[in-house]
Amino acid sequence: MRLVIVGGVAAGTKAASRARRLDPEMEVTVYQEEPEPSISECGLPYFLSGIVERREQLVARTPEKFAQKDIEVLVRHRVERIDASARKLIVHDLSAGRTFEDTYDRLVVATGARAVLPPIPGSNLQGVFELRFLTDADRIRSYAETYSPEKATIVGGGYIGLEVAENLCSLGIEVSLIEGQDRVALAYGPEVSESVEAELESHGVNIFTGEKVDAFTGEDRVRGVRFGNTELETDLVIVGVGIRPNVELASEAGAEIGRTGALLVDKHMKTNVPEIWAAGDCVETTDLTSGEPAWFPLGDTANQMGRVAGTNATTGEDTLEFPGTLGTGIFKVFDLGVGKTGLSEQAAADAGFETVGASLSTYDRAAYYPGAEKVFLKLIADRATGRLLGAEAAGSSSDKLIDICATALWGGLSYPDLVNIDLAYSPPYGPALSPVIQVATILSGKFERAKEGVRASE
Amino acid sequence: MRLVIVGGVAAGTKAASRARRLDPEMEVTVYQEEPEPSISECGLPYFLSGIVERREQLVARTPEKFAQKDIEVLVRHRVERIDASARKLIVHDLSAGRTFEDTYDRLVVATGARAVLPPIPGSNLQGVFELRFLTDADRIRSYAETYSPEKATIVGGGYIGLEVAENLCSLGIEVSLIEGQDRVALAYGPEVSESVEAELESHGVNIFTGEKVDAFTGEDRVRGVRFGNTELETDLVIVGVGIRPNVELASEAGAEIGRTGALLVDKHMKTNVPEIWAAGDCVETTDLTSGEPAWFPLGDTANQMGRVAGTNATTGEDTLEFPGTLGTGIFKVFDLGVGKTGLSEQAAADAGFETVGASLSTYDRAAYYPGAEKVFLKLIADRATGRLLGAEAAGSSSDKLIDICATALWGGLSYPDLVNIDLAYSPPYGPALSPVIQVATILSGKFERAKEGVRASE
Repeated sequence: MRLVIVGGVAAGTKAASRARRLDPEMEVTVYQEEPEPSISECGLPYFLSGIVERREQLVARTPEKFAQKDIEVLVRHRVERIDASARKLIVHDLSAGRTFEDTYDRLVVATGARAVLPPIPGSNLQGVFELRFLTDADRIRSYAETYSPEKATIVGGGYIGLEVAENLCSLGIEVSLIEGQDRVALAYGPEVSESVEAELESHGVNIFTGEKVDAFTGEDRVRGVRFGNTELETDLVIVGVGIRPNVELASEAGAEIGRTGALLVDKHMKTNVPEIWAAGDCVETTDLTSGEPAWFPLGDTANQMGRVAGTNATTGEDTLEFPGTLGTGIFKVFDLGVGKTGLSEQAAADAGFETVGASLSTYDRAAYYPGAEKVFLKLIADRATGRLLGAEAAGSSSDKLIDICATALWGGLSYPDLVNIDLAYSPPYGPALSPVIQVATILSGKFERAKEGVRASE
Repeated sequence: MRLVIVGGVAAGTKAASRARRLDPEMEVTVYQEEPEPSISECGLPYFLSGIVERREQLVARTPEKFAQKDIEVLVRHRVERIDASARKLIVHDLSAGRTFEDTYDRLVVATGARAVLPPIPGSNLQGVFELRFLTDADRIRSYAETYSPEKATIVGGGYIGLEVAENLCSLGIEVSLIEGQDRVALAYGPEVSESVEAELESHGVNIFTGEKVDAFTGEDRVRGVRFGNTELETDLVIVGVGIRPNVELASEAGAEIGRTGALLVDKHMKTNVPEIWAAGDCVETTDLTSGEPAWFPLGDTANQMGRVAGTNATTGEDTLEFPGTLGTGIFKVFDLGVGKTGLSEQAAADAGFETVGASLSTYDRAAYYPGAEKVFLKLIADRATGRLLGAEAAGSSSDKLIDICATALWGGLSYPDLVNIDLAYSPPYGPALSPVIQVATILSGKFERAKEGVRASE
């Protein structure tokens, strides 16, 4: 029995390891286009600055290590076509420059996602980069070593742009950030966007919101960015305006595409094509809060999906299920941790919910304990049922608060459940009542008053 | 309508504030025996060492501040008797040395708990202390300033003893810790006790386990501690072997005592005596994991109970419910954070559960991200149903991991729910898969193998 996996980052390598563990007899081959497998893509911004010192640190396992587990990982190999009826693949070996045919009994598609490059004139100038793969980071580092850029421009105020801003600043580069919408961190409510912008500004980042880049200028390498009536000098541009799922290979083999544009799979990570499973950034999943199809290209989710796809592709049965996700995420920008889970107020409204929200800026530990810092937390609940729909946090311990809220959402809890929840308290670790409890209590008051309002008007 | 509250620490002051907020007309009086109300008792160890610099920092609100909210707080007043049929109180004013009568319409008993002092010869020597109230801390500090102790002995390896050990060490005092059982931190499994002992030893604390103190020795002030064949020199002793609920006042007024020895209340924090509610360290509650009566004298729980008791005593109705607790707790000992929620393996066995457990020592963030540290996490599940019964953690980010697990327990989640749970990932905040997910996955493997074992034997 031969299992082939197309794509060797988080989902693909997890599926391979899982197959090997479950079935020592299975032949397992992974094709990976990039020169290394199992790259920690989330670590790339920190490699730009040298916070992560050596590129090997971002390669979880080399092909040699996989070989020791009897998993064949072929890097610099691009799968060009899947013939599902014949269970064959056309593979291009990029190093050798040759094309060959392979066969499979079962296939896992883990082709990931690629950066979107908007059609801005000058995008092909030297010094204009995206940051998706380790090889992109290599190119940026090599460019920076050659030209020692003094001014950099980041296009896009999403989490990659924000993480890159921090890391370029730490190299002593003057950073400008251009965002097309009226604020950065659009997945969050306006309070969080404001904190992020304040954090960026306090570290000297120039922010331009509501601006669309008209052109990158320069002769051979980039020297400027033009938008509206402004032309900024710049030596380096990093574009992070979004990514898009790599669905073409599977789609040409007959796999259906979902509403989000990513591959459609069932709960068992199976596509509609017999013997083909898919996992990771290339697939669509369910947003468990709204119940709607969603696309959340995140490393941890890809890993979890890879486990399910790898298991089921190995057993050939519907052994494991992947239930869907909450879109939980976090990023760090300078000293500010910013996280979310579930729906923002806007996303909840878009999904048809009427919401009640409450928020608070409070301390992360007992106010008298040294080092106490502020954290902002917002909870969003369904007006009709009281069910928690989402949470956002910014500041110290936001990772903890978001993980508490994510677990609450995962368990389908409602705001009253959070008023008396028994969390861990000690002065070095939190205020007597967790910010989650404090905000849930405020929320509870709002629901009570809303009910009284209804009663009074009856 | 007159509401009287007996006890002015966490539960009592919370109940008072809640009453004032809900009913501006209610007369609210709080009697507090100690010289200050609303003391942060959990902060006391940090006041010994000066980590918390000023004693005022541990007084959340002075009587004057309460007066501004039209809450009368009478400190140094001890309620000596409740006449429930006449709704009268006998109160002793400790400052004036006089006794008077007061009346109430509704009463909240929040008499807290007191330290247990074992009958050890020499306990009355100068320099032998307990640490329960701010006045105890005052006495210890004053003694330490007068005698500059070089060697201190702590009796009891529970969380207070452990926190005090850290704080005395930070004053340059050589600390010995004596525990009657064979390990410290008995509420935890043996792995955690080992980590705690290693942490203590690495900071120079001498640990004696399985030892019972026979006597404190000295003429006027303490100079030694004798146990077995050992006599340790010591200048200062702090006894922290446990606390006991203050139930006598309410009990004499007819309130029932529960199986744990604390006051019996219903979900609305009502005692069996008409118009008397009770809350905080003096009451028994339900352990939500085992469903059994339990006594968890913890500041955050007291606060939450106080809110419920204060609300219901104000409305005179069963407006709010307090559901019970998980016994979630955390403490810091030097650089080690140690937390738990739900049942330990021993407690689960005592409650009649057959358990499956799994544990792991892993990183608190991406291994390549600077500052990554180890954390130990154990999950305990019910063999019959897979429901999560408890969790223990020791090390960096243990507060986060325990709060995730506490929320999972609160939501009644089972181990498979935690395998695919969507938590927040970014390299500075965690490994790609949270330690919770990693341990749940190991647990999942154990359950699978157990099932296969059953199948194979059928």
